[in-house]
Amino acid sequence: MAGEAVDDVLAVNASFYGAFERGDFDTMEAVWAEDDAVVCVHPGARPLRGRRDVMRSWVALMAQAEYIQFVLTDVEAAVVEDVATVTCTENVLSAPPGMPRDAFAGGSAAATNVFRRTSDGWRLWVHHASPVLSVRHQPEEGDLT
Amino acid sequence: MAGEAVDDVLAVNASFYGAFERGDFDTMEAVWAEDDAVVCVHPGARPLRGRRDVMRSWVALMAQAEYIQFVLTDVEAAVVEDVATVTCTENVLSAPPGMPRDAFAGGSAAATNVFRRTSDGWRLWVHHASPVLSVRHQPEEGDLT
Repeated sequence: MAGEAVDDVLAVNASFYGAFERGDFDTMEAVWAEDDAVVCVHPGARPLRGRRDVMRSWVALMAQAEYIQFVLTDVEAAVVEDVATVTCTENVLSAPPGMPRDAFAGGSAAATNVFRRTSDGWRLWVHHASPVLSVRHQPEEGDLT
Repeated sequence: MAGEAVDDVLAVNASFYGAFERGDFDTMEAVWAEDDAVVCVHPGARPLRGRRDVMRSWVALMAQAEYIQFVLTDVEAAVVEDVATVTCTENVLSAPPGMPRDAFAGGSAAATNVFRRTSDGWRLWVHHASPVLSVRHQPEEGDLT
């Protein structure tokens, strides 16, 4: 049962990134929980609270991104009762407006996504993504990265 | 009732920052939920999952900080059933080892803290803090910061 819930949460997590990649605002709206406690922190930005401000930020981000692709690594999920966390590294490939054709910008962010189980299934409740300053794949004892 | 729950959550949130400031590991351990789904992301770092890794990171951070003080601004909280979010700006004043006496380093981070209501009261379940790249107090339309 816990395994099924984890699979369900990971499917909604994948829908969230797929919606951003495709600029699919309807799916983005459906992925997020329908309450005003939702929180979204874009890399380097201050927290946004409430559906109105969070959804407006996605409209703006999707309008800016001519091409964006996410390759998720280090995806880990856990479910406790009616809440779940997914953490992952967002490896982002994008072509921002104004960049020459065939030029891409890349980068990595650490993301924490929190989901709530609602009567309509698992919904995204918190998304916090932040730049990773140091990427090391063999962390040492006492290392925080 | 909702107001009381918000107050309770804000009190635990204050205990969390107080424990870090005082280097009080016992309180830090008590503040965090007792399950292995806990998540902690320090500014610029990758996600840590599970009590063991999260607590080890606090031991390391507390050992590094000779002096650290948090002034929290933009504190906002919301409770939905048995989960709560607190967002805030962490304005940090610290004296890292190796800096000259009377010299301080400052900085700001955006933090999202998620709490779960347990049989022992509200406990911290997710802490994600990230550097704020641009601080503007009068956000404009479409601005994400």
